[in-house]
Amino acid sequence: MNIEKTPAPSVIGRIPERLLLGPGPSNAPQSVLDAAAQPLLGHLDPFFSTILQELQAMLRAVFRTENLVTYAVSGTGSAGMQTLAANLFEPGDTVLVGRNGVFGTRICDALQRMAVEVVPIDAPWGSPIRLEDIEQAWRRTPRPTALWIVHAETSTGLLQPDMQAIGEFVHRNRGLFLVDCVTSLGGAPVEIDAWHVDAAFSGTQKCLNVAPGLAPVTFNERALRKVAARNLPVTSWYFDLDAIRRYWIEQEGGGRLYHHTAPISSIYSLHEGLRLVLEEGLEARWNRHRRMAGALQAGLTALGFTYRVKEASHRAPMLHAVTLPPDLESAVRPKLLAEHGIEVGAGLAAWAADTWRIGLMGVNASEEVVLRLVDTLEKYLPAKKGAGRKAAEATLQADGG
Amino acid sequence: MNIEKTPAPSVIGRIPERLLLGPGPSNAPQSVLDAAAQPLLGHLDPFFSTILQELQAMLRAVFRTENLVTYAVSGTGSAGMQTLAANLFEPGDTVLVGRNGVFGTRICDALQRMAVEVVPIDAPWGSPIRLEDIEQAWRRTPRPTALWIVHAETSTGLLQPDMQAIGEFVHRNRGLFLVDCVTSLGGAPVEIDAWHVDAAFSGTQKCLNVAPGLAPVTFNERALRKVAARNLPVTSWYFDLDAIRRYWIEQEGGGRLYHHTAPISSIYSLHEGLRLVLEEGLEARWNRHRRMAGALQAGLTALGFTYRVKEASHRAPMLHAVTLPPDLESAVRPKLLAEHGIEVGAGLAAWAADTWRIGLMGVNASEEVVLRLVDTLEKYLPAKKGAGRKAAEATLQADGG
Repeated sequence: MNIEKTPAPSVIGRIPERLLLGPGPSNAPQSVLDAAAQPLLGHLDPFFSTILQELQAMLRAVFRTENLVTYAVSGTGSAGMQTLAANLFEPGDTVLVGRNGVFGTRICDALQRMAVEVVPIDAPWGSPIRLEDIEQAWRRTPRPTALWIVHAETSTGLLQPDMQAIGEFVHRNRGLFLVDCVTSLGGAPVEIDAWHVDAAFSGTQKCLNVAPGLAPVTFNERALRKVAARNLPVTSWYFDLDAIRRYWIEQEGGGRLYHHTAPISSIYSLHEGLRLVLEEGLEARWNRHRRMAGALQAGLTALGFTYRVKEASHRAPMLHAVTLPPDLESAVRPKLLAEHGIEVGAGLAAWAADTWRIGLMGVNASEEVVLRLVDTLEKYLPAKKGAGRKAAEATLQADGG
Repeated sequence: MNIEKTPAPSVIGRIPERLLLGPGPSNAPQSVLDAAAQPLLGHLDPFFSTILQELQAMLRAVFRTENLVTYAVSGTGSAGMQTLAANLFEPGDTVLVGRNGVFGTRICDALQRMAVEVVPIDAPWGSPIRLEDIEQAWRRTPRPTALWIVHAETSTGLLQPDMQAIGEFVHRNRGLFLVDCVTSLGGAPVEIDAWHVDAAFSGTQKCLNVAPGLAPVTFNERALRKVAARNLPVTSWYFDLDAIRRYWIEQEGGGRLYHHTAPISSIYSLHEGLRLVLEEGLEARWNRHRRMAGALQAGLTALGFTYRVKEASHRAPMLHAVTLPPDLESAVRPKLLAEHGIEVGAGLAAWAADTWRIGLMGVNASEEVVLRLVDTLEKYLPAKKGAGRKAAEATLQADGG
């Protein structure tokens, strides 16, 4: 092969700086990036053991759970979904799934491939799954096993309300309650224990500001009992919870059992990312996301953008799905990247043509970022010059300093 | 939770330097580590597209293949195994698997969980799978689909011989030939196309000297036809080749289709790691591994270590499984780590008590490393002081400078 003789010149040293305001990855603080460049340790090294243990404790704090089995799957966010699906369900199970965007649809797909019975509970994109629809679907379904809900739908910008009431309903009916909190974790309240969530998964590259590559998951005792009661083995060797927990959780007499080689550098980064999240404090972080979302919303609205989620209280603070003002071409999106180094996301599926998805995740939920984005958008909307910034600043001022 | 109020002090800045001479991870060059700390890009950013494309070209060169579908699975080495298993097979298929160590056994386990019929072809640990045993097993098996072989068995240090002859036999019989080259890739000849390998997987943390977290895989047209001819969907959404290839391989009209968010930083590192491998040149790299393996072998043998692979020509140059001299306690292994910062691996399964696994992978296949290890071991073998170094140096000298 030719390339062997002429290795590619390294482009890695020339990676441009971007302001990542799409649906993820978000920008990572330098200390999180630098963590990945620390010296490698063996995956059974006692020092690495300490790192794993601290990471798990921090993950429990961020998930607001006491669940022992809380770890990071060696794969990106969707590997967390796959871990829940593969371990908790088998043919014969029936799972109700909230389907009001791409990620709920993805869960249905993942389960159906495994020959698990899926009962979708639909709502229009941008609208929440209604509690009464859940109750009705549960009652008319013969022997449902579980309900699986997406907390923040990254395709629509919807933040699902009524999480605790849904959890209580599912538990009263002896079902399992599963939650996708990929986009919400670290940016809006996620209360695994208080909401009666039995298993959940997340990603690192959204509000935790860590490079993609790991999927935090948590399982409570009810979920583990379901895994233990399986009739068939977990078909995925790679995601087998029963084996992997023996690596993450020290066995009696000390020691961890090898399953697969842990992604050492990614774990360093997640450790540092979680440390920064907890240093700020979860409530402070949620509040910051809420404030900056309000400012961005005021700015975008003043510039003529329209939110796809109509009900303001259902909007996810970290992901703004908006249609463009009539005087803005959608071709401005690649220009924002090429000319200003700002990435915003395109809409998915049916919304690909006319929707942008703007993320304000973790460190990017800041006054500076909101104003930079609004100022930059105004360059393409000369008739509204100044209106976006003015509205954003007024909202920030009204919402405390 | 308490920890939220008192975030753990960062241990990440205090990670000790280790010389990683276990079964992997190996040490990574600083430029490979630093690559992971470069600014994050979006997974659909045009600049990232260039990185993906270059990475794929380099991966093809390292695998010695022209296969279009050659990419890095978003998971550690075993995720590559899972990708091959999940996409190529389904109930009704019968797969012959070489089983002479932990990793062949793992492949059997992965396939059996999927209700695929497995016909193990056994050999004692440390001995190769014999071509005549393969031929016999193939003939007495009704309608075999494939043969799956581990090239370098990391549990035993065996390098499987006769790869091309095995590939030719399997193809003459219209089967698929699958290879696990996790440990061999970049450290010993791996010839995907010349050996008639239809699909293979590897890892990054062995002879490629990149942190664990990605699994290079390659599929040829014969393998892709088998995937296309499936009766049932691939049960794993996360590893679904058909969807993932639409992200890695640009679609007509340009563009990549979103499946899951690629692990950006890990991909930077693999790009840099592959660049360094090709900059040295594969043949030079293989030769270096061979020379350093000879030196280490001479040194260890002079110190009284015994190779578990009896036939010298079957020993993998990058992984030395040895039993200890009678005058060396196995408790020296943790001392090597704690007192000298040198990691060597324990034996696996039946060999846990009395075997060490010593890796010389990638950058660690160097004169300096071999002599440092031998010198350090001699501290615990005072009666043999100097003998190991002397034998190692003599071998290096005899094998050209």
